[in-house]
Amino acid sequence: MKFTTNKTTLAYAIGTVQKIVSPRSPLPILSGILFEAHGNQLTVTGSDTELTIQCTVDVETEREGSVVLPIRYIADLVRYLPDVPIQFHTLPESTSTTITYGVSQVNIHGFGSEQYPRLPAVERGTSFSLAQDALKEMLRQVLFAVSNDETRPIFTGVLLQVEERQFRLVATDTYRLAVRRFQLENHPEQNINVIIPGKTLNEVARLIGGSGEDITIVCGENHAFFLTGTLKIASRLIAGQYPPYEQVIPREFVTRTQLATREILEATERASLLVREGNPVVQFSLQENSCVVSVQTQAGWIREEVSGTVEGEPLEIWFNARYMGESLRALGSEDLTLELTGPLSAAVLRPSGEENYLSLLLPARPPKE
Amino acid sequence: MKFTTNKTTLAYAIGTVQKIVSPRSPLPILSGILFEAHGNQLTVTGSDTELTIQCTVDVETEREGSVVLPIRYIADLVRYLPDVPIQFHTLPESTSTTITYGVSQVNIHGFGSEQYPRLPAVERGTSFSLAQDALKEMLRQVLFAVSNDETRPIFTGVLLQVEERQFRLVATDTYRLAVRRFQLENHPEQNINVIIPGKTLNEVARLIGGSGEDITIVCGENHAFFLTGTLKIASRLIAGQYPPYEQVIPREFVTRTQLATREILEATERASLLVREGNPVVQFSLQENSCVVSVQTQAGWIREEVSGTVEGEPLEIWFNARYMGESLRALGSEDLTLELTGPLSAAVLRPSGEENYLSLLLPARPPKE
Repeated sequence: MKFTTNKTTLAYAIGTVQKIVSPRSPLPILSGILFEAHGNQLTVTGSDTELTIQCTVDVETEREGSVVLPIRYIADLVRYLPDVPIQFHTLPESTSTTITYGVSQVNIHGFGSEQYPRLPAVERGTSFSLAQDALKEMLRQVLFAVSNDETRPIFTGVLLQVEERQFRLVATDTYRLAVRRFQLENHPEQNINVIIPGKTLNEVARLIGGSGEDITIVCGENHAFFLTGTLKIASRLIAGQYPPYEQVIPREFVTRTQLATREILEATERASLLVREGNPVVQFSLQENSCVVSVQTQAGWIREEVSGTVEGEPLEIWFNARYMGESLRALGSEDLTLELTGPLSAAVLRPSGEENYLSLLLPARPPKE
Repeated sequence: MKFTTNKTTLAYAIGTVQKIVSPRSPLPILSGILFEAHGNQLTVTGSDTELTIQCTVDVETEREGSVVLPIRYIADLVRYLPDVPIQFHTLPESTSTTITYGVSQVNIHGFGSEQYPRLPAVERGTSFSLAQDALKEMLRQVLFAVSNDETRPIFTGVLLQVEERQFRLVATDTYRLAVRRFQLENHPEQNINVIIPGKTLNEVARLIGGSGEDITIVCGENHAFFLTGTLKIASRLIAGQYPPYEQVIPREFVTRTQLATREILEATERASLLVREGNPVVQFSLQENSCVVSVQTQAGWIREEVSGTVEGEPLEIWFNARYMGESLRALGSEDLTLELTGPLSAAVLRPSGEENYLSLLLPARPPKE
């Protein structure tokens, strides 16, 4: 293998796949990155077995070939290379690769590429496309609600459903729930109902957007694929049945308020500063024309007043301030609607005037006196 | 105490003193910041007993007074406050302080200021002044060589000497040594010879500069003071005799090279990337018209060639790449002179054509084959 490129191209390709490659992978070959030069393209692949990311960039190829180079050395090295033409050269029958930049050289021992696990083939699956920026925003609005608890794998994933032209993402860790809907321009051949690991979607959200281009999602039996012009992301699916979430969304409310998102978010953040130990539980008191956010602790007290319109009964309710902050930040709108059915029932948050997104948040127990 | 100010002023004053205040100080009162309103000025003080920092800013005072507020709450709170007038109000005979911003309020329990240790008075001492930017650059050039090893306290400090108009800073951890000289415009009444904790000088370097103003240094029996228009920094001195450092600086050399600082620094950094375990020991080989930086490990090898002029004998020597990197970054010049007297003797680094700064670096043992 022999090709010439530059630092920016290399750094982009390696930076794209690097995050999922662990230098301490139990499978030594996966502690490396696969470099494949074919035609005038370099394809760089990183994998943790469950998730594989591939990035293809243009280079000048002198001899086709492939090699796996250890992430431990190659990632930092590229960051420190000077801005001159950079040549990669692996002799046939060898895995030792010489990188030449100006009059200097570095040589790194690699692994043979034949040991590198193949990317699962894009299976016969159902596919649909949408704008990268639209998907990125949808992901941002649900990923905060994904659980980290590996003992309940279903909740570490996001439910992805397509029914006719309606595309839906749902995430919950059982304390909060986020539901985002989106109307596709064309419906896929079949309906889709899969659970995709949150980790995969965090990577997708990190890597896409800003280009105005579409992304194609292909869902097969065991894998999902995310495809753009330069990227191919393959992920296993999470097996199992996502719980029926629709029935936990309250249909009625006793109190409803409209507030400026930023004001209530800042009030919540400040109030939580006084609750440094354990769960940062903060009181929200809906009164005639305002929401009062307050906390009383041994260190002192805080009382934040955020004006807004309140319909229905006055109500006092407690929330975990960190959860509330994440829910508020996910809204992405200037104003929000908060609907409550009682001090012990889940609250519903929506961007004001937006029907395609809502999130649910369970109240917290008041702190002991 | 009752005064009104704004977020920027508060954040500046608290940010200035905050770094040395520990929320877990063994002396509870020192886990707080002292607020003192006198005239239309607020003085904010933080201390760790060895080092005290005081910052004075203009505010609108309605009633003079003072209180100590816990850093644990006040520092973050100020960062999160909105950009509106902010009023601090402590009732007489109370330490409970109410901070009002718009229609919201927070109340924090403080400590009585009478328990707060007094700043040592600026003693009858010897004083001199220089431009803040000049001192900041001098400090940057020596502080990297200060030791962290508390078992040998002298080396955790910087020797500060003034003889007539010559001001000198010296630091060493016994592996490297940095000496910076500066010609003062006026000489102090007496010569000065004190050892100031590196921690103090790191704070001084962080807080000064950019203003074009002078800083005054006052050295007394047990304390040194650093004074500017808004800042008063008081530090204990380190007792003891600084070792005679002049005699370890080689007067002659067998090999001398001139190199571009950035090129040799980048070559050193890249070479060290292949030596991830233990001491990153890198070979420097001075040849006819170049310095070759190289490493050979089980992971591969690197060979970096930096062109330069070399006088004297060819020579191979090993250095700790991290130490070499810090020494190179401290030079602050485009080109450097590196003087060597043998593979086992200290190297001398100077900015090319600069007589007022040098640093010494001991060679490292070559790695075992």
